[in-house]
Amino acid sequence: MKLEGIIAYPITPFKAETQEVDFDALTITLNALLEHQCDAIAPLGSAGESAYLSWQEWQQVAQKSIEVVNHRVPVILGISELTTSMAIQKAQKAEELGADVIMVIPVSYWKLTDQEVYEYYQQIAAATKLPIMVYNNPATSGLDMSPELIVKMFEGIENICMVKDSTGDIQRMHKFHELTQGKLPFYNGCNPLALEAFCAGASGWCTVAPNLLGKLPNLLYQAIKDGDLAQAQNLFYKQLPLLRFIVQGGLPKTVKAGLNELGFNVGAPRKPLQNASLAETNQLMGFIRQATQI
Amino acid sequence: MKLEGIIAYPITPFKAETQEVDFDALTITLNALLEHQCDAIAPLGSAGESAYLSWQEWQQVAQKSIEVVNHRVPVILGISELTTSMAIQKAQKAEELGADVIMVIPVSYWKLTDQEVYEYYQQIAAATKLPIMVYNNPATSGLDMSPELIVKMFEGIENICMVKDSTGDIQRMHKFHELTQGKLPFYNGCNPLALEAFCAGASGWCTVAPNLLGKLPNLLYQAIKDGDLAQAQNLFYKQLPLLRFIVQGGLPKTVKAGLNELGFNVGAPRKPLQNASLAETNQLMGFIRQATQI
Amino acid sequence: MKLEGIIAYPITPFKAETQEVDFDALTITLNALLEHQCDAIAPLGSAGESAYLSWQEWQQVAQKSIEVVNHRVPVILGISELTTSMAIQKAQKAEELGADVIMVIPVSYWKLTDQEVYEYYQQIAAATKLPIMVYNNPATSGLDMSPELIVKMFEGIENICMVKDSTGDIQRMHKFHELTQGKLPFYNGCNPLALEAFCAGASGWCTVAPNLLGKLPNLLYQAIKDGDLAQAQNLFYKQLPLLRFIVQGGLPKTVKAGLNELGFNVGAPRKPLQNASLAETNQLMGFIRQATQI
Amino acid sequence: MKLEGIIAYPITPFKAETQEVDFDALTITLNALLEHQCDAIAPLGSAGESAYLSWQEWQQVAQKSIEVVNHRVPVILGISELTTSMAIQKAQKAEELGADVIMVIPVSYWKLTDQEVYEYYQQIAAATKLPIMVYNNPATSGLDMSPELIVKMFEGIENICMVKDSTGDIQRMHKFHELTQGKLPFYNGCNPLALEAFCAGASGWCTVAPNLLGKLPNLLYQAIKDGDLAQAQNLFYKQLPLLRFIVQGGLPKTVKAGLNELGFNVGAPRKPLQNASLAETNQLMGFIRQATQI
Repeated sequence: MKLEGIIAYPITPFKAETQEVDFDALTITLNALLEHQCDAIAPLGSAGESAYLSWQEWQQVAQKSIEVVNHRVPVILGISELTTSMAIQKAQKAEELGADVIMVIPVSYWKLTDQEVYEYYQQIAAATKLPIMVYNNPATSGLDMSPELIVKMFEGIENICMVKDSTGDIQRMHKFHELTQGKLPFYNGCNPLALEAFCAGASGWCTVAPNLLGKLPNLLYQAIKDGDLAQAQNLFYKQLPLLRFIVQGGLPKTVKAGLNELGFNVGAPRKPLQNASLAETNQLMGFIRQATQI
Repeated sequence: MKLEGIIAYPITPFKAETQEVDFDALTITLNALLEHQCDAIAPLGSAGESAYLSWQEWQQVAQKSIEVVNHRVPVILGISELTTSMAIQKAQKAEELGADVIMVIPVSYWKLTDQEVYEYYQQIAAATKLPIMVYNNPATSGLDMSPELIVKMFEGIENICMVKDSTGDIQRMHKFHELTQGKLPFYNGCNPLALEAFCAGASGWCTVAPNLLGKLPNLLYQAIKDGDLAQAQNLFYKQLPLLRFIVQGGLPKTVKAGLNELGFNVGAPRKPLQNASLAETNQLMGFIRQATQI
Repeated sequence: MKLEGIIAYPITPFKAETQEVDFDALTITLNALLEHQCDAIAPLGSAGESAYLSWQEWQQVAQKSIEVVNHRVPVILGISELTTSMAIQKAQKAEELGADVIMVIPVSYWKLTDQEVYEYYQQIAAATKLPIMVYNNPATSGLDMSPELIVKMFEGIENICMVKDSTGDIQRMHKFHELTQGKLPFYNGCNPLALEAFCAGASGWCTVAPNLLGKLPNLLYQAIKDGDLAQAQNLFYKQLPLLRFIVQGGLPKTVKAGLNELGFNVGAPRKPLQNASLAETNQLMGFIRQATQI
Repeated sequence: MKLEGIIAYPITPFKAETQEVDFDALTITLNALLEHQCDAIAPLGSAGESAYLSWQEWQQVAQKSIEVVNHRVPVILGISELTTSMAIQKAQKAEELGADVIMVIPVSYWKLTDQEVYEYYQQIAAATKLPIMVYNNPATSGLDMSPELIVKMFEGIENICMVKDSTGDIQRMHKFHELTQGKLPFYNGCNPLALEAFCAGASGWCTVAPNLLGKLPNLLYQAIKDGDLAQAQNLFYKQLPLLRFIVQGGLPKTVKAGLNELGFNVGAPRKPLQNASLAETNQLMGFIRQATQI
């Protein structure tokens, strides 16, 4: 399996009254993403509030998502756990449910040494046959894995085969390329870096943007593939204000606000996260209009 | 209730084979702390691997600790939760079990706004009659609360009545003093700042050090109270290499290594955290010997 | 005048025995740069140890450089001064000597407010008719000017008409584009960002690289202009190890080491800066060979 | 010579019309400092705008200051130079003029390696018999010297015999103490750390505060020496708002504003530095009144 292009991240909708997962809304948002020509779907990522769900909820969202996508594109399940044992439990459940890939981020409370991170991944990898995407996002997980460590795991652990980096630091992508002579596929998880990551050789863009911008992220990817840099710049700068805004405001809050405005009933993020304010929502919608008027 | 002096943090012992909580070892370590003249006991803090325990384990450790301490000193239970609802559940359980204080730290995945933090505490405070110690430790929780925000909560939320700051930034303690004209009791959670925090007016020192250094932390506190700055300096500089070492190495790993060497069987920290290496343990024991030869 | 492409930075050669400026070596290095198809020459920049020269030396290097370039391409003179009065003196001298542009960076000791920076540039601009390139490089100057401040100066001060940013932060280039709807020409001064800065719309690359890599930087620029992204990536990744190395090691030290190895006698950097070690020089030459074997 | 207590930093007054050094005003401010029971005087430090003066001005201010102090207390002359040769020139002039100590800070443009810093100090030390105070202040100089490097110079270079640290990081002072078993006298240059630095064993407080607060800094020092921690806290918290304000606003600007209000005619700082605004000046005077009402 070769993942390329736009990897779309659904949010996890909650019912307004009960804060329970809303599986009907989940189905609708997943189908909408697939209509926007995404190349893979990644439920239960940071945007999907994976870390805020109970173990039971996580399983239910995973199962429902795999069922709805129904092999139209690959499904990448997100796992963000503090303990090795819980991460292993999820990895095994993902395999059992029929996921194609797991994306694993080691959440930290006490900072982990490189050796601890290595064994965390090694033990998860030993417990599943699924391919593993290493996910680095210190802003949420509190842990920063160096390119050197990630490459060491790519070379030493069999089913670790790709990396998603959300630091926004283009030099890390250069390092992935250099340290492996281009063999490690890297994916960009920092929305405002979408243009340059592709230019540096990223295999894909991991993004919530198709939820709000439809096919625009895909068009940017196509322009790059066509070698049309002027068009890629044009498409990128149109989307950029929105991309920056959703990152700064926090994805669950902003994407849910936008989806609710666009007619999807996806509820609020889970407390202590709050809804976007009216002013934030208005600003967001302005950026969506700006981006989609091409 | 007025908390002052040395607030001791037990670790949570695990059995070597099963990784289950070892309640006998817990009892022994708690009794040892009480022999070292600590003024309060704070189970389930960062050092107690609170964030790595299941909900059931958390309850069991809380119950056992309260039972063992048996009103000899106040018990402060640690709560570090991502969601408001889980934090409330723990606060109510703490009250039911007979804790004297809860120490609450909002763990973050998506960064919280000040308003989100405020409501997180407000909703917990509304669910319990227990006094609340706000705990700020961005290095573990990923969230940094400004002195201004903490003071606002102290002034606006009834049962918020003290703050533990582990940033190691003495200027924050100055701010607590200034913004409340000395009314907000503040506690220092950064071991290598123990001397200066007391000098700046801290009410107490929240520390695992009595696990390894016995009465030495208490002697430092007494020297300050006696106005004997030369003796306080002397006592502090003796302890400092150990204090720095355990912070840099991570408390669960280093304190458990030391306790195991000292004859307590407290097991290893929970994975992905690993045991201290032999070299680290030797270094640690050297610092303990250096500190305790007075 | 529209500056585009490769803006080459010469070093300032010193005689081995006397540490005096070596004008013969300067002539040779300038002519070599011009043979490498550079689109402009920028003497007395950071790489040219401008900040380490006496007022008299600065004038002599400026005069000689303008004379040697002799209108083959535009000459951009660097001015990095702590006091407004000294910066004005240099700006007026630059105009008198026949420079085409001045590149101005406000060196800081006491941090400057935005208002102080604005007036610094305004007063320099009022003292000369030359176009001014604002130069932002907090790593050397100790002062970081925000894109918003730079755009404000671009819009409010007549002869401020371009910006060189050396922070390596691609998001700043996005800001220049967005805040001026593409009207402010921006130049990249961070060598390891050369590929992506061009992709984001940079007008040029300010670099010492042609000293060591000849026409390679120009070839990268041409590939971008031709829309050949695969070739641009290829050319960039070949140069990258060298580009990173010279930035990390400090430009005067590393570029002089390389030039000396390549047969130019440019001497050592001025003390306290030291020569590259033998190991560093060997590593450097390895990177040059790696880059130039195309 | 054993320096202890309050080391006072005069500003360098400029005439309003001509921006020339005002030697009469300098005399008056120096005499005022001496009346406030300062234990040493340090002209031409950061607060004295040393870096903004011409070589000739530096010599004149040095000569005049030494003449005015006239051996009443030791004189420590500040040297902040980019090049080794200029720093040596000033060191030799300081000795010739009769200074007691030189305080040397290596200003950086290109970052210096530890070896480059070591040789910078070594060459200066070899050129003079004067005792040298190493001065570390990365916020102004752009260079941060580790405690390990400073201790290495203290142990390896004969006339390096004390250190002033302005980082505000109390842990560095602990390091100075530990790495030399208390042999290296360290001085605190961060005003809002005055209380704790003394508590940690600092030999002195390097400060502009006596310019605005008269004998208050000395009273704080006396309270510490008397072991009266409650009084020291009281004195410190009274001064703290002012101490924080002058650091945040920049010393030359704020201290000159205060001195002008207090009836000294010391002019404005040198451009691009600007005068304090009316609002800033009012706030400053409020803090002075708050501190001096004891």
